[in-house]
Amino acid sequence: MSVFFNVLPPAEARALMLEHIRPQREAETIPTAEALDRVTASSLAAPHPLPTFRRSSMDGYAVRAADTYGAGGSLPAFLRVVGEVEMGRLAAVALESGDAALIHTGGELPETADAVVQVENTLPIGDEEIEVVKAVAVGENVIQIGEDVTTGEEILPDGHWLRPQDLGALLAMGIVQVPVARKPRVALVSTGDEVVPPDQEVGPGQVRDINSYTTAAQTRQAGAEPLIYGIIPDEFGALEAAATRAMEEADLLVFSAGSSVSVRDATSRVIAGLGEPGILFHGVAVRPGKPTVGAIVNGKAAFGLPGNPVSAMNLFDLLVVPTIHRLLGCDSPPRRPVVRARVARNVAATPGREDRVAAKLIERDGELWAEPIFGKSNLIYTLVRADGTFVIPLDSAGLMAGEWVKVRLA
Amino acid sequence: MSVFFNVLPPAEARALMLEHIRPQREAETIPTAEALDRVTASSLAAPHPLPTFRRSSMDGYAVRAADTYGAGGSLPAFLRVVGEVEMGRLAAVALESGDAALIHTGGELPETADAVVQVENTLPIGDEEIEVVKAVAVGENVIQIGEDVTTGEEILPDGHWLRPQDLGALLAMGIVQVPVARKPRVALVSTGDEVVPPDQEVGPGQVRDINSYTTAAQTRQAGAEPLIYGIIPDEFGALEAAATRAMEEADLLVFSAGSSVSVRDATSRVIAGLGEPGILFHGVAVRPGKPTVGAIVNGKAAFGLPGNPVSAMNLFDLLVVPTIHRLLGCDSPPRRPVVRARVARNVAATPGREDRVAAKLIERDGELWAEPIFGKSNLIYTLVRADGTFVIPLDSAGLMAGEWVKVRLA
Repeated sequence: MSVFFNVLPPAEARALMLEHIRPQREAETIPTAEALDRVTASSLAAPHPLPTFRRSSMDGYAVRAADTYGAGGSLPAFLRVVGEVEMGRLAAVALESGDAALIHTGGELPETADAVVQVENTLPIGDEEIEVVKAVAVGENVIQIGEDVTTGEEILPDGHWLRPQDLGALLAMGIVQVPVARKPRVALVSTGDEVVPPDQEVGPGQVRDINSYTTAAQTRQAGAEPLIYGIIPDEFGALEAAATRAMEEADLLVFSAGSSVSVRDATSRVIAGLGEPGILFHGVAVRPGKPTVGAIVNGKAAFGLPGNPVSAMNLFDLLVVPTIHRLLGCDSPPRRPVVRARVARNVAATPGREDRVAAKLIERDGELWAEPIFGKSNLIYTLVRADGTFVIPLDSAGLMAGEWVKVRLA
Repeated sequence: MSVFFNVLPPAEARALMLEHIRPQREAETIPTAEALDRVTASSLAAPHPLPTFRRSSMDGYAVRAADTYGAGGSLPAFLRVVGEVEMGRLAAVALESGDAALIHTGGELPETADAVVQVENTLPIGDEEIEVVKAVAVGENVIQIGEDVTTGEEILPDGHWLRPQDLGALLAMGIVQVPVARKPRVALVSTGDEVVPPDQEVGPGQVRDINSYTTAAQTRQAGAEPLIYGIIPDEFGALEAAATRAMEEADLLVFSAGSSVSVRDATSRVIAGLGEPGILFHGVAVRPGKPTVGAIVNGKAAFGLPGNPVSAMNLFDLLVVPTIHRLLGCDSPPRRPVVRARVARNVAATPGREDRVAAKLIERDGELWAEPIFGKSNLIYTLVRADGTFVIPLDSAGLMAGEWVKVRLA
């Protein structure tokens, strides 16, 4: 089978690529407070229980529950107030039978107390006595030591994408440094004789390089670090030199290959020659983005994406982002927002090819509609005018106006 | 009406706050390539059309369409190949009637050509002649100047949250610097005598400060810059000094007020005394998070959030994040991902109060179920173990197992 005709359905292309990718297992230790959107490089266990002491969950009085048994509105229990628990201090009040101590939410329960009566269920009698009008059970309104987390319990698993609450969970345990996966380095190489840098005026027949920057932003969103190599001339030797450098410096190589056939062929030949096992697929049954090459070279992934900016972003999302997450060792990265909407018009499709249709969301009669954005040239403005993208599956001949789709926002 | 009993439903609290907040309208100009997740500070118009030249959308031959009229498989048109359009160069080939020029996808159409015949619809006859087996119309396979964007057309509106494709759209126009809204500065103040910094060992009755860090991460996600003031002692003078400093340095003040009544009262009094009009609401009908104070002080927002970490994150999300977005001038910030799931068990609720229930998502029999995570103490591990949160509306007495809810992922 010639690799040059090995066109795979998108799910198969992705699965085949991921079969070859192992998590990097390289960690770096950083301050927990700065670890938002990083991925844990090991499982983390609780060094101590939480709470570390018996805490009151109410404002009220710490008591011995037995002293309140039978108490009610018509027959209150009378307790002597012998002190107040200060916040953040050892609860130095000793309760004898018949005693109570004023306590605040979060305060430590005195050693001989076993419950808290809510302030709402008490009446003061002078300064030193209260009526309790509702009995409490042992443990009522008390958070026990280790009730949230016990010592040695796993706080966070390995490969966990860190959210705001996860940082809080680590800091609550005094874990102020956290081992996280090193960000994979993604080499981004643009080619094509018509492509010039964005800060340059365009001459006849020229276009500015945008794929380096859209895919750099996608790289960052995926949790990796972009290395922008700039625009490499459409010559086998120059492309090969860039690819060789990328294989040394980076964990992953992404070519975006200009729009002409010659440069696409040159990047394919360069990728094919980099090492073993080489090209896994040469074409993905998806529109836009079909002429995409995926390869494994000495254990590293290399991609040749089409030069068309919508195709490049589409295939980056489909193939490169999951590869980055696998390198990070993260099985459950943040999901993209998805909304259900009805297709605003008929959309034809070709069975055997997955179509990704950019769409604008419009609210009409209280329902959400997805208005497909068609652009002959498939230039970047299709995606700029869109709120997201919906998929017409591989086996479908199209969608009728009014059918429901899931629009993935981006 | 005493402000101390002014408890508002969450939607009303938010709307009342936003009524008082105007976008900051302070811009800074930064490199477009680094502007991901920033917000445009002005509308941006196209300085030139896109494409800037007539581009071929296919590999094939540039022709005069009239020369192909009537051509078909049985009666091909014969055209002379007079040259090749080089990528990125002026199309220097002059086509007379009966001529064709080899052209690649993205190449510039020669001046006297008006269509492109796909290479698949041609047959070569030696080096200098082709058969065209399918006629083309004027403009076929050609992207006209300005077909994507015309000069002066709005590329991006004011207040637009910049996505990867938006950076590409600006760079395609040579807009390498972009005016963005300055990030609002959010002063984060923790209080409570029981609270110690995360790097400190906890003594009896003490807990580590985590609200400063969870809300700092939420601040960053919302597009703003956190200023962590640390832990301020529970004394009116110290709290007032911190608040006064925040009103000078920051655009927004957030207290998280420890768990005792006294510190909540002290922060409320400090906020009430900062300036006019003062406190807008003193309590939000939501659980967890009811004892929340919102104020406007000399045009700036100030919040007193509960010390409980789940409550603090919940109310930050509900009130502070929309305030940040309003300051940024952004009406359509990125949405959070939401999934539909069925509640795994009955959940009781109190009408008149909106409940926000942390839940874990579980796949069972091909359906997604939301398993509520109840924790008496409402400590941070409730949110760590959760995949997201669903809402029981204000007027509901609860949900029955099996009912559908929308789980907002976080």
